[in-house]
Amino acid sequence: MPETKPGTTLDLTLDAPELTARLVDIPSVSGTEKPLADAVEEALRALPHLTVERYGNNVVARTDLGRAERIILAGHIDTVPIADNVPSRLDENGILWGCGTTDMKSGVAVQLRIAVTVPAPNRDLTFVFYDNEEVAADLNGLGHVAAARPDLLEADFAVLLEPSDAQVEGGCQGTLRIHLRTEGERAHSARSWMGSNAIHAAAPILARLAAYEPRRPVIDGLEYREGLNAVAIEGGVANNVIPDACTVVVNYRYAPDRSEAEAVAHVREVFADCGIREFVVDDHSGAALPGLSHPAAAAFMAAVGGTAQPKFGWTDVSRFGALGVPAVNYGPGDALLAHKRDEHVAVERITHCENRLREWLTS
Amino acid sequence: MPETKPGTTLDLTLDAPELTARLVDIPSVSGTEKPLADAVEEALRALPHLTVERYGNNVVARTDLGRAERIILAGHIDTVPIADNVPSRLDENGILWGCGTTDMKSGVAVQLRIAVTVPAPNRDLTFVFYDNEEVAADLNGLGHVAAARPDLLEADFAVLLEPSDAQVEGGCQGTLRIHLRTEGERAHSARSWMGSNAIHAAAPILARLAAYEPRRPVIDGLEYREGLNAVAIEGGVANNVIPDACTVVVNYRYAPDRSEAEAVAHVREVFADCGIREFVVDDHSGAALPGLSHPAAAAFMAAVGGTAQPKFGWTDVSRFGALGVPAVNYGPGDALLAHKRDEHVAVERITHCENRLREWLTS
Repeated sequence: MPETKPGTTLDLTLDAPELTARLVDIPSVSGTEKPLADAVEEALRALPHLTVERYGNNVVARTDLGRAERIILAGHIDTVPIADNVPSRLDENGILWGCGTTDMKSGVAVQLRIAVTVPAPNRDLTFVFYDNEEVAADLNGLGHVAAARPDLLEADFAVLLEPSDAQVEGGCQGTLRIHLRTEGERAHSARSWMGSNAIHAAAPILARLAAYEPRRPVIDGLEYREGLNAVAIEGGVANNVIPDACTVVVNYRYAPDRSEAEAVAHVREVFADCGIREFVVDDHSGAALPGLSHPAAAAFMAAVGGTAQPKFGWTDVSRFGALGVPAVNYGPGDALLAHKRDEHVAVERITHCENRLREWLTS
Repeated sequence: MPETKPGTTLDLTLDAPELTARLVDIPSVSGTEKPLADAVEEALRALPHLTVERYGNNVVARTDLGRAERIILAGHIDTVPIADNVPSRLDENGILWGCGTTDMKSGVAVQLRIAVTVPAPNRDLTFVFYDNEEVAADLNGLGHVAAARPDLLEADFAVLLEPSDAQVEGGCQGTLRIHLRTEGERAHSARSWMGSNAIHAAAPILARLAAYEPRRPVIDGLEYREGLNAVAIEGGVANNVIPDACTVVVNYRYAPDRSEAEAVAHVREVFADCGIREFVVDDHSGAALPGLSHPAAAAFMAAVGGTAQPKFGWTDVSRFGALGVPAVNYGPGDALLAHKRDEHVAVERITHCENRLREWLTS
């Protein structure tokens, strides 16, 4: 018998559900993706129609057929920590259980199956497998590739195979977190006129938030829903002290017709005359356009069927948006099962997604 | 030489500044007042014109001359923790330094000097020496005496010898702390319309506070100044969650023409239509009338001179107010020096207060 390295090779002739199970059985909790990245790289390098590049534990494989359009199929190879749910288990109802079955090794299996079964796609393809999606944003492999090798991510349209229950979710809303600080002057609360109350000074901020009417813009036929909300408020020194500081933490979720700069400007304008002493952008991730009006996207929608839904939450499609690449989420898993101990996926959904994508890329 | 018990006897023939020094040198941090209470009791029992009662570490001594009026002279015998400022030290400028010099062993010395030097006062006198004023309200010795032996505190007028820089401070304002809670429903902040924001729901509360115009009622010629202030605000679950709860902690400082029930009713009325889910009285200490229109008080003012000031902060005079006894603060120390490492008092102020009180009680 030839020597094998169990646990570190991938057989791309397995069908997508079997391949999903194999991927689940190679643990790849964020930060420990190397064995799986090695296996993905090795398997793809065996395919003569692909050019493979490795950047850290990120693997990018491309066709170069001179097609009029280029499509990215992207997925992260890491998972949240294992919770007694590895190895995978296929039950009698066609449900595959295990860590990452939904989020998102079933999507990665679909990527790999398209890579191996569609050597001459009607559009050039770029497959992106990246690490550290489940942890802090600055570790995100897609972000690292975008920063170091943006050329690898040039494309007309991107599909991120994050769990969307095989429905198309277009683009994503941006999320901006801002600290609004008011100022006062301390005094004993028995002599409050000697000071100035910073919590009272926050009254116009809360009034503005309570009266705010969020937009619901329609973009590429998708109705987005914005929101401007206080997610925290904090003020107070002691029970007998007039407080000299109060902070309202505001989260603005905004539709992808606004740029990051426009989003900040909008929040500034909303609170322009509220006597705010400090306006601090604490965190900001831009929105991504769904790009459904692009011809490649129209063909994609025709192939996968269903009605596209707007994506309200922020996802890595935004990283494509920042590169000018319209992007959607489309993957076999159910997002509501992600990160759960009983994470699972219906194998029928995996095959369904694989077939739909193949139809789009070969018809 | 006869055996002595150093540190546990008081010589009431010392003058008031010397007696203050002696009192400082018998440590009596809250909870450890027994040796000093013993010394006070022993010294007072030696005076034939006084009837002495002991309740815990509280000592009450009374004349019983059948006078038309009865006056209380009260002071606490405990101090905050010693901070390298015991024993006392008298400097060349007539300043006595040490823990309790201001708050309020100089006042206690004046009480003791009046007790020993005025055997036949023009008004019956009740001297109250009590423990645990510097700690939690439920430990307060004056409160314990008021609850267990209210008969000992019957009087027409009370002088609390707390530091007031030898100025009369009349009555005290009440202080009421209330938690106002709003309620909402959690949701992911990317889908805020699925929830309801409890911080936004607090907007009417802050608006009401910001617009509130506090009263400045004149009582017995003293202008009090009320205040209604947020002293804390807290809300928020996580940066991406619509918060389902927010609490505004409000402190109402109110003039002594309002009862405790009226104060609570007023705050309820102020926030009546603000959508408050919970209204919780967290702490409440009533106000005390200055009683300066009482004949005994008028004579007191004439004797001590100066212009009475309203007392904005809450003090133990309120405990007399609750018993129906008008009360003022009048003591030799400077309240701003209380609880400080460099606590000190001018001996001239001690003698000044002693002389003024003696004049009032003997003329």
